[in-house]
Amino acid sequence: MDRYDIAIIGTGPAGLSAAITATIRNKKVILFGSNDLSNKLAKAHTIKNYLGLPEISGADLAKAFKDHLDAMNISITPERVTAIYSMGDYYALQIASEDGKMVEASSVILATGVIAGKPFPGEEELLGQGVSYCATCDAMLYRGRSTLVIGYSAKEEAEASFLSEVAGSVIYIPMYEGDYDLPETVQIVKEKPLSITADGLKKVLTTDAGSYTVDGIFILRDAVSPGQLVPGLETDGSHVKVDRTMAASLPGCFACGDIAGAPYQYIKAAGEGNVAALSAVSYLEQLKRNNQ
Amino acid sequence: MDRYDIAIIGTGPAGLSAAITATIRNKKVILFGSNDLSNKLAKAHTIKNYLGLPEISGADLAKAFKDHLDAMNISITPERVTAIYSMGDYYALQIASEDGKMVEASSVILATGVIAGKPFPGEEELLGQGVSYCATCDAMLYRGRSTLVIGYSAKEEAEASFLSEVAGSVIYIPMYEGDYDLPETVQIVKEKPLSITADGLKKVLTTDAGSYTVDGIFILRDAVSPGQLVPGLETDGSHVKVDRTMAASLPGCFACGDIAGAPYQYIKAAGEGNVAALSAVSYLEQLKRNNQ
Repeated sequence: MDRYDIAIIGTGPAGLSAAITATIRNKKVILFGSNDLSNKLAKAHTIKNYLGLPEISGADLAKAFKDHLDAMNISITPERVTAIYSMGDYYALQIASEDGKMVEASSVILATGVIAGKPFPGEEELLGQGVSYCATCDAMLYRGRSTLVIGYSAKEEAEASFLSEVAGSVIYIPMYEGDYDLPETVQIVKEKPLSITADGLKKVLTTDAGSYTVDGIFILRDAVSPGQLVPGLETDGSHVKVDRTMAASLPGCFACGDIAGAPYQYIKAAGEGNVAALSAVSYLEQLKRNNQ
Repeated sequence: MDRYDIAIIGTGPAGLSAAITATIRNKKVILFGSNDLSNKLAKAHTIKNYLGLPEISGADLAKAFKDHLDAMNISITPERVTAIYSMGDYYALQIASEDGKMVEASSVILATGVIAGKPFPGEEELLGQGVSYCATCDAMLYRGRSTLVIGYSAKEEAEASFLSEVAGSVIYIPMYEGDYDLPETVQIVKEKPLSITADGLKKVLTTDAGSYTVDGIFILRDAVSPGQLVPGLETDGSHVKVDRTMAASLPGCFACGDIAGAPYQYIKAAGEGNVAALSAVSYLEQLKRNNQ
């Protein structure tokens, strides 16, 4: 298996800034994220304080970022990283796939943003016991059975569609407005999820209008909490603890942008991505010296 | 005297970013620096990692920054701040002038960059005893006497010209290449300064080619060391010690950009300027609550 120098998770300003700086420094980089870059950015009305680009819309700023990537031939790997395991002198990244695909990287830069809001009551307790964050990974466990998907953005519709090919039934609760592109067999329910409980082997989602009893509940967010993404990482609520070099508690792991703490600002995220990339470059040099 | 909410010292990317964010937050801001923004930036050949502005020359990036300021009607005060004194709940800024002008601000953001290289041997020991960092302030002390100016950028030529109207003689040692715009009475010496010593009341500058004995030596750099600029501030060599909020050791004092530490990168500086401004805004809110 090819090992990357740096795996960057997230295509908001922090991840993109890290990717361009790491690429300039001739590192072998894999950048995980969305070709649409960032939902939050695309929806931003006007950004006034990204120095050098006054009064710019989120869409135009995203386009400027995309043009920068294109000018440097940096590509985005549109796969979901579901877990990152520290293996001593490298990291193993689990990719959402049916065959349990893994990717290896000597260092990791976390730039996944922060989760808006807290987990649902019962969510973390039942994770792995009927509650899952990855439909692509776990669909086969629910062959012919009843499922429910809470989707936080339109890209989760593809996950729900895939699940519907396997599961006995799929209820989809969109946490966003829009036109939903889903098979007819998927039941769309526009209610507000409140909590998850267990009832024997079944799981019960209670909403503001009723309750749904199913075999499996999938919660598909743009970001998972950093402690769940990287087991063993020191966190502070929904943030990764970092120092001024953007180093997290595990050697070779760095974080930048919203996941590294407030303020949640584009230019701050871009600046931190640059620092994280240069710190990862230093770490790789140190690693090389130690292995000689 | 009008008291500003935030005084920002420096017009590199850190200071400019701080200025636009503080202005958006409706603070009363004074931005000290150069209308040419930053010498370092203007001279940069190509910058590849300022996210959103790929492959840009330093001159073009400076123009994009200037356009951003102009779009927001932010003006630059082209005066030199020679010292900043903490007065409890505000700061008193000493401005280079003949009449000892002062400016007051509730908080201060230091964004002056770092000094390239170390002070000359003897420089710090003889500061205030024949060695000065401010020709405008101290020229009158050298009426009719012999002086020498070490100038680190073309804008110091105006200081040397002013000095030549008062002093008996002026030797000018330029630390940069260019066409020098100086009165005929100023003697230009292109030698490399090595050290400063005292000889009775006279000062002796030794260079790589000889030595010059004068009454006063002026060393005019773009930046002075932060510990000299803000007495009592905790520093780490040529850097100001800051935390992740860009807060320095004195309440209400923040630092960002190169002066806050490596890496010396434009996008990192811009990101830190944004954070420093938002931290200053929080500090001002706290100050207001405490004074109620």
